Amino acid sequence: MEDVLRALLRGEIDIATAKNKLRVLNIKRVGDVAKLDVNRAQRTGAPEAILAQDKRPEDVRRLALAMAEENGYALITRVKEEDVAELEGNLPDGYELIRNQKARTVILKREGHLFPKAGRIGVLAAGTADISVAEEVVVTAEVMGCEVIKAYDVGVAGIHRLYEPLTEMLEKNVAAIVVVAGMDAVLPIVVSSHVDVPVVGVPTSVGYGMGKDGIAGLMTMLQTCSPGLAVVNIDNGFGAGVFAAIVAKQSRI
Amino acid sequence: MEDVLRALLRGEIDIATAKNKLRVLNIKRVGDVAKLDVNRAQRTGAPEAILAQDKRPEDVRRLALAMAEENGYALITRVKEEDVAELEGNLPDGYELIRNQKARTVILKREGHLFPKAGRIGVLAAGTADISVAEEVVVTAEVMGCEVIKAYDVGVAGIHRLYEPLTEMLEKNVAAIVVVAGMDAVLPIVVSSHVDVPVVGVPTSVGYGMGKDGIAGLMTMLQTCSPGLAVVNIDNGFGAGVFAAIVAKQSRI
Amino acid sequence: MEDVLRALLRGEIDIATAKNKLRVLNIKRVGDVAKLDVNRAQRTGAPEAILAQDKRPEDVRRLALAMAEENGYALITRVKEEDVAELEGNLPDGYELIRNQKARTVILKREGHLFPKAGRIGVLAAGTADISVAEEVVVTAEVMGCEVIKAYDVGVAGIHRLYEPLTEMLEKNVAAIVVVAGMDAVLPIVVSSHVDVPVVGVPTSVGYGMGKDGIAGLMTMLQTCSPGLAVVNIDNGFGAGVFAAIVAKQSRI
Amino acid sequence: MEDVLRALLRGEIDIATAKNKLRVLNIKRVGDVAKLDVNRAQRTGAPEAILAQDKRPEDVRRLALAMAEENGYALITRVKEEDVAELEGNLPDGYELIRNQKARTVILKREGHLFPKAGRIGVLAAGTADISVAEEVVVTAEVMGCEVIKAYDVGVAGIHRLYEPLTEMLEKNVAAIVVVAGMDAVLPIVVSSHVDVPVVGVPTSVGYGMGKDGIAGLMTMLQTCSPGLAVVNIDNGFGAGVFAAIVAKQSRI
Amino acid sequence: MEDVLRALLRGEIDIATAKNKLRVLNIKRVGDVAKLDVNRAQRTGAPEAILAQDKRPEDVRRLALAMAEENGYALITRVKEEDVAELEGNLPDGYELIRNQKARTVILKREGHLFPKAGRIGVLAAGTADISVAEEVVVTAEVMGCEVIKAYDVGVAGIHRLYEPLTEMLEKNVAAIVVVAGMDAVLPIVVSSHVDVPVVGVPTSVGYGMGKDGIAGLMTMLQTCSPGLAVVNIDNGFGAGVFAAIVAKQSRI
Amino acid sequence: MEDVLRALLRGEIDIATAKNKLRVLNIKRVGDVAKLDVNRAQRTGAPEAILAQDKRPEDVRRLALAMAEENGYALITRVKEEDVAELEGNLPDGYELIRNQKARTVILKREGHLFPKAGRIGVLAAGTADISVAEEVVVTAEVMGCEVIKAYDVGVAGIHRLYEPLTEMLEKNVAAIVVVAGMDAVLPIVVSSHVDVPVVGVPTSVGYGMGKDGIAGLMTMLQTCSPGLAVVNIDNGFGAGVFAAIVAKQSRI
Amino acid sequence: MEDVLRALLRGEIDIATAKNKLRVLNIKRVGDVAKLDVNRAQRTGAPEAILAQDKRPEDVRRLALAMAEENGYALITRVKEEDVAELEGNLPDGYELIRNQKARTVILKREGHLFPKAGRIGVLAAGTADISVAEEVVVTAEVMGCEVIKAYDVGVAGIHRLYEPLTEMLEKNVAAIVVVAGMDAVLPIVVSSHVDVPVVGVPTSVGYGMGKDGIAGLMTMLQTCSPGLAVVNIDNGFGAGVFAAIVAKQSRI
Amino acid sequence: MEDVLRALLRGEIDIATAKNKLRVLNIKRVGDVAKLDVNRAQRTGAPEAILAQDKRPEDVRRLALAMAEENGYALITRVKEEDVAELEGNLPDGYELIRNQKARTVILKREGHLFPKAGRIGVLAAGTADISVAEEVVVTAEVMGCEVIKAYDVGVAGIHRLYEPLTEMLEKNVAAIVVVAGMDAVLPIVVSSHVDVPVVGVPTSVGYGMGKDGIAGLMTMLQTCSPGLAVVNIDNGFGAGVFAAIVAKQSRI
Repeated sequence: MEDVLRALLRGEIDIATAKNKLRVLNIKRVGDVAKLDVNRAQRTGAPEAILAQDKRPEDVRRLALAMAEENGYALITRVKEEDVAELEGNLPDGYELIRNQKARTVILKREGHLFPKAGRIGVLAAGTADISVAEEVVVTAEVMGCEVIKAYDVGVAGIHRLYEPLTEMLEKNVAAIVVVAGMDAVLPIVVSSHVDVPVVGVPTSVGYGMGKDGIAGLMTMLQTCSPGLAVVNIDNGFGAGVFAAIVAKQSRI
Repeated sequence: MEDVLRALLRGEIDIATAKNKLRVLNIKRVGDVAKLDVNRAQRTGAPEAILAQDKRPEDVRRLALAMAEENGYALITRVKEEDVAELEGNLPDGYELIRNQKARTVILKREGHLFPKAGRIGVLAAGTADISVAEEVVVTAEVMGCEVIKAYDVGVAGIHRLYEPLTEMLEKNVAAIVVVAGMDAVLPIVVSSHVDVPVVGVPTSVGYGMGKDGIAGLMTMLQTCSPGLAVVNIDNGFGAGVFAAIVAKQSRI
Repeated sequence: MEDVLRALLRGEIDIATAKNKLRVLNIKRVGDVAKLDVNRAQRTGAPEAILAQDKRPEDVRRLALAMAEENGYALITRVKEEDVAELEGNLPDGYELIRNQKARTVILKREGHLFPKAGRIGVLAAGTADISVAEEVVVTAEVMGCEVIKAYDVGVAGIHRLYEPLTEMLEKNVAAIVVVAGMDAVLPIVVSSHVDVPVVGVPTSVGYGMGKDGIAGLMTMLQTCSPGLAVVNIDNGFGAGVFAAIVAKQSRI
Repeated sequence: MEDVLRALLRGEIDIATAKNKLRVLNIKRVGDVAKLDVNRAQRTGAPEAILAQDKRPEDVRRLALAMAEENGYALITRVKEEDVAELEGNLPDGYELIRNQKARTVILKREGHLFPKAGRIGVLAAGTADISVAEEVVVTAEVMGCEVIKAYDVGVAGIHRLYEPLTEMLEKNVAAIVVVAGMDAVLPIVVSSHVDVPVVGVPTSVGYGMGKDGIAGLMTMLQTCSPGLAVVNIDNGFGAGVFAAIVAKQSRI
Repeated sequence: MEDVLRALLRGEIDIATAKNKLRVLNIKRVGDVAKLDVNRAQRTGAPEAILAQDKRPEDVRRLALAMAEENGYALITRVKEEDVAELEGNLPDGYELIRNQKARTVILKREGHLFPKAGRIGVLAAGTADISVAEEVVVTAEVMGCEVIKAYDVGVAGIHRLYEPLTEMLEKNVAAIVVVAGMDAVLPIVVSSHVDVPVVGVPTSVGYGMGKDGIAGLMTMLQTCSPGLAVVNIDNGFGAGVFAAIVAKQSRI
Repeated sequence: MEDVLRALLRGEIDIATAKNKLRVLNIKRVGDVAKLDVNRAQRTGAPEAILAQDKRPEDVRRLALAMAEENGYALITRVKEEDVAELEGNLPDGYELIRNQKARTVILKREGHLFPKAGRIGVLAAGTADISVAEEVVVTAEVMGCEVIKAYDVGVAGIHRLYEPLTEMLEKNVAAIVVVAGMDAVLPIVVSSHVDVPVVGVPTSVGYGMGKDGIAGLMTMLQTCSPGLAVVNIDNGFGAGVFAAIVAKQSRI
Repeated sequence: MEDVLRALLRGEIDIATAKNKLRVLNIKRVGDVAKLDVNRAQRTGAPEAILAQDKRPEDVRRLALAMAEENGYALITRVKEEDVAELEGNLPDGYELIRNQKARTVILKREGHLFPKAGRIGVLAAGTADISVAEEVVVTAEVMGCEVIKAYDVGVAGIHRLYEPLTEMLEKNVAAIVVVAGMDAVLPIVVSSHVDVPVVGVPTSVGYGMGKDGIAGLMTMLQTCSPGLAVVNIDNGFGAGVFAAIVAKQSRI
Repeated sequence: MEDVLRALLRGEIDIATAKNKLRVLNIKRVGDVAKLDVNRAQRTGAPEAILAQDKRPEDVRRLALAMAEENGYALITRVKEEDVAELEGNLPDGYELIRNQKARTVILKREGHLFPKAGRIGVLAAGTADISVAEEVVVTAEVMGCEVIKAYDVGVAGIHRLYEPLTEMLEKNVAAIVVVAGMDAVLPIVVSSHVDVPVVGVPTSVGYGMGKDGIAGLMTMLQTCSPGLAVVNIDNGFGAGVFAAIVAKQSRI
């Protein structure tokens, strides 16, 4: 800043130029720090991930390779068939692909890269139609180092199947339980009324008529008077996986 | 119709007049039947009722007296203090008022009028804030002749209080169970997943934030995959009471 | 619980272990009862049913066979062509398929299995576009043992066709009438203003512009001041069928 | 425009000035016509009216007097007590006030001013709670010269009271029928399915729960398959009155 | 009714039978009138029309032929290619098809059938994307006997093209003007602020982002303070055509 | 169950009675477990709390005293002036009241009762208008034994005030950070993009126009691509406090 | 007007004709001015553009050629493949096509036509999925003569990439910055909190679950307390480009 | 960072401590820059302002005095009577209050403080009910140094009053025009279709029924195809004033 003012005094620049230089200076300084902060995503504990949904296959491939080169792996979510074809057709030596079709994910991994170990969570899905989102939770949490105990199809219709895995989860001291549910989304409320660990609810876009697209389920979870439940957006398995894994990690800090 | 056509032929009326007379004729005929059908409300089994909410006290009183004179009683719902004052201040001989403050109802009754007996229903309320609507259900069903078994404060937080009255309801063969619930409105779903009698859900306008004013509860009930549950509008205790009582009555036809 | 405490006293386990064992104990106990309760669906009177919509054909087939083996039949709703192909291509001996294309249902039935007889209901559809949902009501109620009197295309435009079947329904003492209607959904209101049996309204997702997807119809039914009407979610023919059949059944308990 | 260009050529103005003058010129020309068009409101047949709702009493009075001075009268809708007090306390000689409390209107009129005669319409209201809006229709149409045949409390519950006034309306050749209805707003649909004159539906903000504030009624009317019905906004009695009166007037052009 | 009571007295039927016969009696009586009223659609002035959208081609053909046989023609709206193929492939002698591809309509007509003449209306469309709905208005009104003056592409961007057809419409004394507009739907407001004939607004489902699917346009029209405008549902060209034609017809009664 | 069957065989009861006894049996068994489970709320770690909002003062007092007698304290949220008066006027010996006016909470506590110590969380509020909700978080978490580090008025306008408390929170290893924010609710996103501990977002009903009542803020938080953030309902400070405290507690199991 | 009155006095026309001629006169006068105003679009500074989305290829071609002939070019937005084929297959001599696939635009240009130079703006896009809309901004602004500095993929995840282009934009004195963002749409708020030039926010329809289709982003921008930000509709790159270019142009008037 | 690593190497701290110190370090560094950036609000050109709406009078006073002491003035918007009383009752020497009741603003100003001069804008309001918001625009822009040309009551009903002030605005080269409008909000569209300067639309919460609370107006403005219009939130006069003033200022940079 002093330089600008001196230049002005020495008549090397006029007032208009000085004013502009001064307003630009600050933004530069903020930018300098932001650049130092480039590994922010890493520090927050969030995984290296790419949401493939709205991206062209060549962009997905390019971004994934850059990420994997730097960090050992890239997690690609909501992957399309074309993305997989593009990745498989151009896989550099020393890399491998781990696909989970139900979760619609692909992990591009440098051979030999090992995921850390960082705690344990539970994942429950109410119905068969919720499994895809639940698997996205699982893959995400595993990439972040979590061991995952999972059980599906344990909603209202199959509530008798709920308690065995729930017992196991509590015995094994899971740090958090993610509950994925569509339709009326009552399962997260039932679970959170039974346990003393944080429950993360993920409404899914399953359902029809009034309250379809997951809206009814989201509202149900937000309205519940059974505390100990927080939610992420409809179908956001990735977000729930990250959140639960962060809970699991921080409990070991 | 013939008369019109003859009059036209005899030149007593012109074509325009004839056309108009003919178009009016039909509406008259429909109206004649409608008039014969004046006791329709009675025949459908719905009680003689007045929704006081948007009416002036003098109108409420006038309507109630006319109704009570003809049918022996009038049920006034969502009654205001002014309505009660108006009614109490001008009560003709031979009539009495039965007020239920929680239900916000008043029954204006000819002395000696007896309500019929017509079956048995159950009424459950999830929270203390839902009792007002539940009492409206009770009063309505009783006026229609139902015996009502009721239990309040049996929602998620007090779920252990649910099963005793539920057992009693089943033992006594209730024809239907009305479940009144606000917030996440999970109770009707839990109840309908336990019993083999029809369950009528009444969402209440209790709750806050996203899904407030009963919207979340209504959607939850509509989305449920636990069949055997039908709903009425938010806070519509009267409608639920009538519906349940009709179920109770028809099972004895 | 005593065992845990004794083990603690004997020094066989430490306090942390004891605490965890105790918290797990309760969930186990709840689970034990839940398991005893495995035939809950059956007891509530709901039929053995599978919503095929969001399931893979192989899952539909597997679930249906398991269900039919145990209970004699499985009702599959919102069936897809692939589901039918999968079922037809792999039908075990001793089973048969009963398809209703309008209702989009398939019943997988053990030969010789007989559906019980359990009462009588009426089903009305306002327009041709509502027939698919109405047929889902019919199939569901029949599987639950109901005799069904049905009449379609009796909405506002064909209201003169309404009264003959309505008369028949009343003469034959139906226990409930299901009315399926899209667009402005006035028919359920008209019907419930004529009869003294419970009316179950099913809005359909027919319509366009403001209030499309069945929202207008649902609201109309919820707002009506003609009591004796309760509703299920938009297009939920299955739910309405179950509800009406339960009403029919309980009136004979 | 030529003047500007000449001045530019003569060097009296520079290009920037010329450019600005040219862009201003056009807006001036549009404005000149708009000024000639100042009696537009009058020509469209709409009455001289003031919506008092969001205005201060002194503004209401000032605007009303100016209007009455020029046109003989001013119709003030949704009038507040303060507005009436302000008007009554400062009424110039030669003017009178005609208040309709139900309609929440006041007409400020020069003594001797006569309203024209211009056709005949019908106005129906479904419930007691809809009368206020219906009276706004009546006052508006009368100010525009219409003779109005009206009948209230003829909704579903009192449908047998509908046909007599409807017959009279048709016999007297009303040019349009305005139907005011809250809750499920079925009445406009019933009426339009009986008559061959245009029906204008006015939903009112009566109702509760899902679809309250008139939304359900508006949607019902928009979705109807009974043609011959058009709508105005919720509670817009003024708009419906103007529309119906214009229909009545144009049929005599 | 007497017969029932006598039969009861004579002991030919018991009380339960008598009660049921009595409740059935009334519904029969209403039905009898309804049957006499079978030509209701005709009397209300609405045209003989079929909404093909949700119907199967064979149903469309069957309904259309029945209608044309009875009334000389059938108007089929939102016609699908399959419907046209079905109709063309099976056209009985003595019938012809008149197709309007922009309007998505087909008229099935007995040769020699003549449409009545019944007044004159105007139809305006704001943009090219609104023409399909506008043509539906035109076809509907013509079938009902109206002469139609039309002008398209006269919205905000081409407002200078508006005034010539508007002048012609007023000179020729149209009874009503239908204005079809998507996006911000300002055109109906502009038109209604210029003319003294009733304006019917038809919002179209053209637009994107916030307020898409015609919602913004519908709200704009409902909120306008320019009276003399009523609306029908989004894209409802048929409804607007019927309404305008009824206005045109009644002005000649 | 055997008893019932034996009684049936011995002819002591008939089939209908047996059937009813059997259906009642199961519900009884579920109820027996539910009763054992009466201390469920306690086990889930949720505090003993009463939402005073929709309750009458006498009910609030009665419930609070019962709770405090059993568990040493009761936390009353959204307390009204009347509730406080009622409590203060009737405080039994040996109890004290701790009021937090900003949080609108009162703690009714047996003298000598000590709250456990159970971890540490951070609470941030974006604006002054969000403090009330933030204080509810604080009180709730403290009752559950948490040490709370808090900082208010650190939203976009005062973002430079954010980093000092954030630094302290990280240095002191908070287990979770609750971020309370209204309007555009950007703060939770900024915070979660900086830290590696779970962030719980609480939208508040501060704001106006489109997206008011907290809807915009809730949506922003749900849509964020900055993972590590989960939300509770608008204004739900209690729920966020419980959730964060449970996270803090479980990290020490 | 005088002519009409004279003709009336001379008995050449009757009163009805005179009245009609007078009401037509005014609309003619307004129309005359409107016709003079035909180059309005040009004067407002908006570019010659065609929204191809809902138009048929032949209409797009015809409109574009007419426009290009008169003004030297036509900008076609949301162009479809068929439009491009139609244009390429029928390109008259002396014209060229400039296509931008990402922006989904085609410029039809007379050879030799030069776009004016008129200021400088900045365009930022938060994510890869927002680039299409951002490119529409760029093309639009360039056609209007703006120099555009652009930078993409600078949202929350890549915030460190934001400051370099932002610094350049300020150094080069951009007149406005357009910020295109989907999901939570925080970027426009961050940018507007850094700079002293007007920021135009464009929410995009990227996102899922609650607040999808751009609704969340639009609300976030509208709610922000960071002033200096105005918005256009979701995905409206064209509108934002025009607005920013007008800001750039007017700052040089 | 080096310090931490050295301390670790020297064994002064353990790895856990080192890890925590490192994660805290970065947040500190970001915070340091943020603190340097404390005059951000000033640099962005936004005025020193306090939204009084949700603040207690003592907080408003404290904040305003601090702000005025540092910057010469404070603009308080949506001021309540209590705020004014609090300010007037405790005004330090050397300060003065400038109140604008229509705008609901108070400026607390050090005597002698002069507002800069920085350009010229126009402000238009459609109706009387929109004036309050328009005055907030005016006060805000004036505080930021703008000369404001304003004209009210120029909406559809008084459109002939629009063109004179519009002509003046263009003649005086306003840099932007803010148009404030409720109900159908057509005015901003009309204005933007006439002028070549940027138009900022402010919908107001005036209106009723469908689209009330400003929603209809906001949608209309967002949907318009008349480019050159951007919007701020409903009733956000402050935001529009800042935006327009920034446009005016930057055109002079």
